[in-house]
This record gives sequence, structure tokens and C-alpha cells, in this order.
Amino acid sequence: MSLLDYFRTSKTSSASLDKERLQILVAHERTSRNQPSYLPQLQKELLEVIRKYVSIDQDAISVNFEQDDNQETLELNIVLPDTNKKS
Amino acid sequence: MSLLDYFRTSKTSSASLDKERLQILVAHERTSRNQPSYLPQLQKELLEVIRKYVSIDQDAISVNFEQDDNQETLELNIVLPDTNKKS
Repeated sequence: MSLLDYFRTSKTSSASLDKERLQILVAHERTSRNQPSYLPQLQKELLEVIRKYVSIDQDAISVNFEQDDNQETLELNIVLPDTNKKS
Repeated sequence: MSLLDYFRTSKTSSASLDKERLQILVAHERTSRNQPSYLPQLQKELLEVIRKYVSIDQDAISVNFEQDDNQETLELNIVLPDTNKKS
């Protein structure tokens, strides 16, 4: 199963199409833990880029960051306002 | 199952820890298709941001973009060089 399949199957099961949503995932598969993670800093810059395209309320963002031995994952879930396109 | 679980389970099954990888997924769940997608343009800017943190070969990036009625998904898979941290 590809990740695209995962998105498709998980979304259609819930009646959640009354709001627009943007979901961003970053997974860093690492071979060593010697270097500090750059994902928290990357997260800020990703949000800055996305704000060029859509307006985002700060409280409409939920962030999840996890680390284990071999992988770090950053998950951003953003609920978009109804009028989401900046002109 | 959360998306973070998906990342965990899918990676541990393959002996793929000899290379560092960065995977980025953007899913835009839409209520209307009247607006053009901004994901292809967003993709370029995301890569520019990521290049601030790691060096990326252009041919080490694979991109997948899919659209259906209610959702667009952008998937970037990047194999990182062994020395991936810019000083």
C-alpha cells in the first residue's frame, strides 16, 4: 500500500468534507543520531511557505513531532478557512 | 491508525536503513474544485526550504502528484547523501 492509498482510504471513511484541510507529513529516516533534528525549525519555514498560498489561523494548526531510534516524523494538520485562497 | 503509525510500520519491515531518506506528504482535502491547485508550485518552494538544511541531488527526488474529486496529494521522496548536513 502506498502512502497515497492511505490518504485515500482514511479520508473517505469519515464525513469530513465540510471543511478544507491541509495535512503535511515529513518523515526523516536516519542512519545516525549524532546530528540534532532540524524538523522543528523546518516546520516553521514550511508554515511560512504555506501561508503564501492560504491564510492560516494559528489555532487551526495541530502539530505532532515524534522521534525514535531510526526515524523522526513531523505531522501538521491545518483546518483552512472557507475562503482559503489569497487573491 | 494514525499516519505516524503508518510511517513506523512501513519502514521497519524493509532493511532500508543504509540510506537516509526524507519523505514529505501534502494532502489537500477540498470542498470545491473551482480553484486551481497550488500544490505543484508549493512543491518547488518546499524543496527550496529543505535545501537550506540538507543537500539534495535533483535526481534523488521522486515526486508523485494525484488529484481526485475531493483531495489532492503530493508526495516527495528524497534519498539523502551520506553527509547530509550542511555546516
